[in-house]
Amino acid sequence: MTQIPHDHPRYKSLITREMAVEGVKKGITSTQGLIAQGRGEAFDYLIGEYSTESAKEAERAATAHLLLAKKPVISINGNTAALVPDEMVELSNIIKASLEVNLFHRSRDRIDRIIEHMESHGAENVLGRKGDSVLDLSHDRRMVDHEGIYSADVVLVPLEDGDRCEKLSEMDKVVIAIDLNPLSRTSQCADVTIVDNITRAFENMLQYADEMKNLNYDKLREIVDSYDNNRIITLAIDEITTWLSKFSKESGTKRL
Amino acid sequence: MTQIPHDHPRYKSLITREMAVEGVKKGITSTQGLIAQGRGEAFDYLIGEYSTESAKEAERAATAHLLLAKKPVISINGNTAALVPDEMVELSNIIKASLEVNLFHRSRDRIDRIIEHMESHGAENVLGRKGDSVLDLSHDRRMVDHEGIYSADVVLVPLEDGDRCEKLSEMDKVVIAIDLNPLSRTSQCADVTIVDNITRAFENMLQYADEMKNLNYDKLREIVDSYDNNRIITLAIDEITTWLSKFSKESGTKRL
Repeated sequence: MTQIPHDHPRYKSLITREMAVEGVKKGITSTQGLIAQGRGEAFDYLIGEYSTESAKEAERAATAHLLLAKKPVISINGNTAALVPDEMVELSNIIKASLEVNLFHRSRDRIDRIIEHMESHGAENVLGRKGDSVLDLSHDRRMVDHEGIYSADVVLVPLEDGDRCEKLSEMDKVVIAIDLNPLSRTSQCADVTIVDNITRAFENMLQYADEMKNLNYDKLREIVDSYDNNRIITLAIDEITTWLSKFSKESGTKRL
Repeated sequence: MTQIPHDHPRYKSLITREMAVEGVKKGITSTQGLIAQGRGEAFDYLIGEYSTESAKEAERAATAHLLLAKKPVISINGNTAALVPDEMVELSNIIKASLEVNLFHRSRDRIDRIIEHMESHGAENVLGRKGDSVLDLSHDRRMVDHEGIYSADVVLVPLEDGDRCEKLSEMDKVVIAIDLNPLSRTSQCADVTIVDNITRAFENMLQYADEMKNLNYDKLREIVDSYDNNRIITLAIDEITTWLSKFSKESGTKRL
């Protein structure tokens, strides 16, 4: 891995980038996954590379949904496996969720490598090899495990594509998306849209899960019922425009 | 290359992505280059994936600068070689510019491969192998050819990093940057900042070069002197905020 000095102002972002590149070398992240990583970097840069208050609110509601779920599943792809393997295992343990590998660029080899990688990070019974149920989609993400995503009531889909998000939503599942682009179809169709970097999102959700795991049904229900995803998405977009306008004014002064 | 249907609404963007992935397979584009491609995609999406009026104004001024130059150089990296090889050769022929390979992740092998690739697209005398002059920078982009970038008066740097852009600017060269992020250090320090996708930017500059190649010195000078880069950057940022605000309102309605 390229050495990044710890005091670099964008240390976290650069380390995350290197982890994605390592993921490609290990054969778990696709080359297209690197492009997705770059898109995420750009949006993260535009929200200021921190967890906004609205993102934290979404993360709190997401955690409540996951704790209330009868059958929660965390969907894994080549990017999340490279970036947050420990965090996914830890969250799945607290909320008693299954982990399922689901790839846009699906290959048996890559599924096996990701499952082995997750196992080396302490995961057990990772689903995704069977693909014995099929969603009505034209690409490989249609193949899901019957005992996993297909029959789940709440699905956490970090870095999801829009098609599948819509399909899962039509199946009346609660869809929680982590997507740095608040305008994407995924962001627009999810029940809870977390506009945050996945490394920060998992860190925050782990903290919320720890704080909230002993709350009773009514308390969790209250958090879920009072959550307004439209408001959160609008706030995320406003966050970017405010930042851009501020920058535009400041840089105009600097450049005079 | 993955087949993309011609009628896909984002055909051009997807084809460009596939070309970058092909570039990695050929050993001319770096894996980090794919992440840069993704960052570009995100910003392109935010300006609406078209050449804005302000981008065209910058492209026109850039072309005038290149036509006025005594010693113009077009800097090539692993992404531009994959995406616009023919266009770089064609532009260099019209404006009588040298082509020079200059890489952030420099290796002799990759330089050779990029030069061979450019030659297969009709380029002659591609510079970049010597690296016999050194800019005061901490990374490999410091190594430039004395007869090329080092002694150039106008440098076109598509997809440049901020450090080198500042250094070239300090050396009193006219720096023309193509960068989809109007907030980047490169965009902020260049003399002409083209906030546009490189495929569209080259297409437009080729058209301008063809229209303007017979203009006399005074006419070209007038175009250059009346150009205000601060205004162009501010317009590019405004373009994004306007688009986001519009989206925010519309999607708020749709989601109600």
